Amino acid sequence: MSVLIAGSLALDNIETPDDRVEDAAGGSASFALVAASFFGPVQLVGVVGDDFPQAHLDFFRSRGVDLQGLQRLPGPTFRWAGKYLPGLNERVTLCTELNVSSQYQPKVPESFRRPEAVFLANDHPRLQRQVLDQVEKTGLVICDTMNLWINTAREELQALLPRVDILMLNDEEARLLSGEVSLLKAGRKILGAGPRAVIIKKGEHGSFLVSADQIFLAPAYPLEQIKDPTGAGDTFAGAFAGSLAQEGGLRGTPFRWCPHLKRAMVRGTVLASFTVEEFSFDRLRRLSEKEIEERVQRLREMVSFD
Amino acid sequence: MSVLIAGSLALDNIETPDDRVEDAAGGSASFALVAASFFGPVQLVGVVGDDFPQAHLDFFRSRGVDLQGLQRLPGPTFRWAGKYLPGLNERVTLCTELNVSSQYQPKVPESFRRPEAVFLANDHPRLQRQVLDQVEKTGLVICDTMNLWINTAREELQALLPRVDILMLNDEEARLLSGEVSLLKAGRKILGAGPRAVIIKKGEHGSFLVSADQIFLAPAYPLEQIKDPTGAGDTFAGAFAGSLAQEGGLRGTPFRWCPHLKRAMVRGTVLASFTVEEFSFDRLRRLSEKEIEERVQRLREMVSFD
Repeated sequence: MSVLIAGSLALDNIETPDDRVEDAAGGSASFALVAASFFGPVQLVGVVGDDFPQAHLDFFRSRGVDLQGLQRLPGPTFRWAGKYLPGLNERVTLCTELNVSSQYQPKVPESFRRPEAVFLANDHPRLQRQVLDQVEKTGLVICDTMNLWINTAREELQALLPRVDILMLNDEEARLLSGEVSLLKAGRKILGAGPRAVIIKKGEHGSFLVSADQIFLAPAYPLEQIKDPTGAGDTFAGAFAGSLAQEGGLRGTPFRWCPHLKRAMVRGTVLASFTVEEFSFDRLRRLSEKEIEERVQRLREMVSFD
Repeated sequence: MSVLIAGSLALDNIETPDDRVEDAAGGSASFALVAASFFGPVQLVGVVGDDFPQAHLDFFRSRGVDLQGLQRLPGPTFRWAGKYLPGLNERVTLCTELNVSSQYQPKVPESFRRPEAVFLANDHPRLQRQVLDQVEKTGLVICDTMNLWINTAREELQALLPRVDILMLNDEEARLLSGEVSLLKAGRKILGAGPRAVIIKKGEHGSFLVSADQIFLAPAYPLEQIKDPTGAGDTFAGAFAGSLAQEGGLRGTPFRWCPHLKRAMVRGTVLASFTVEEFSFDRLRRLSEKEIEERVQRLREMVSFD
């Protein structure tokens, strides 16, 4: 029941209105794999440079992540620096250095080629395609993307969509990709491009899933204080993919009312609520299954009504 | 089990990106009373000028609204004109003419002085206080407000809050009133000023209620298309108040897990989803209980999970 996760591993410099951190573990795959690891085994496909701290890799391994698909290339790791504006709802990218990622070609090890689910974490659609091309069989393909690729690699992204079961993107990206202002219309239009379901992430407002015949609304877990929103969406996506893989993907269940899908979204929502409480995935390092279950239960109480 | 609703009655000129309407029935009390009328008897306290169409008053009466507390003064009715920007999430006020409202003093008829619940729809806090001063006994006081009063009549609003059970305001107003960026923190801080619960309305993102020991999250009912958001918050609030009044307010139930509160928020959410589908409260004119119940049920399916 393993999930193959491919995406970026980075070292981040982040400034928030109250604090800052340097060389924090980041990147779409980092957050996703730590989150997914709470639900079952994870196989990682990615690249780091020779400066990526061994301690992070040891931590990944301690979480049951198989690193056979991780390349370590000479040179510096992908780096990102960003600054959040007061309120934490907007950020400015200060610097992006692709470094070893610019010459990287993903290689999926033989033992990774039949995973229960594949999660293509946010990365260039060309790299996402190259990973998928090497997968022989899987029950489910989940893909995340971002405005950068919609703007600069739209054709490659569009070509990928018919091979994707569930596409994730945030509200602005959904509008950008679809040309629709209404998020529900945007989601439904994107369904026409291939995916069986689209999940639109709305940051502090939660997320929703739309398929041909279903809508599921997952409001965010309410928090008084957040420290750093970086990685919330990747955490959500990783936990979502890991949860679905653990429960056997979507095989043998009608897509429509599949309880796996809802549970996966709720788990994603809850894991993301922990990630934003500290820098990087530091909060997840000491997160217990009991804490996850408590927030799932609390969220259930906060949305249910007679 | 009647609800007393006091607030403004207006004639609105509204421009949306696709359409426009002139002299549409509007004002906080108009939307609120029509919405509340789906759940039980309504008593209106308000004012109109001599140009307010009799047809609207006849419609209110047909919905079971008692108009004994409505004054008709010589001169034009309160007028508001606004223009929505593309996306409908922002609007510009083009003109506000208080007209007969500027000289108005609310009078609560003898037969209105012991309602199950009072809803002080958005209006100057001085008028809201004058209404409340005339109520002899009620099970519940619900109050809505807006940024204008927070900016121009903050002391009068603050003085009212200890007499309010449930305060409603939107996200920006909650931040303005509390000085907190986090909406959950804002809600909790406002609780300290008097109300037993605060409901923060987030437009297309729904609303949430926070009390000392409860949070209830009510995401908006998803719609592909909205025509005019005007009155959505007033509709929500009116249906909320009407639903609570119908079920006997909050007397005799512990506040904490009171199912009435949740049901009232869901009904408010659903009624608002109908209001925005057409101009004014036109969609509510031909709304059936069956349609309401269908959306309540659909919303339950869209948020519930195992």
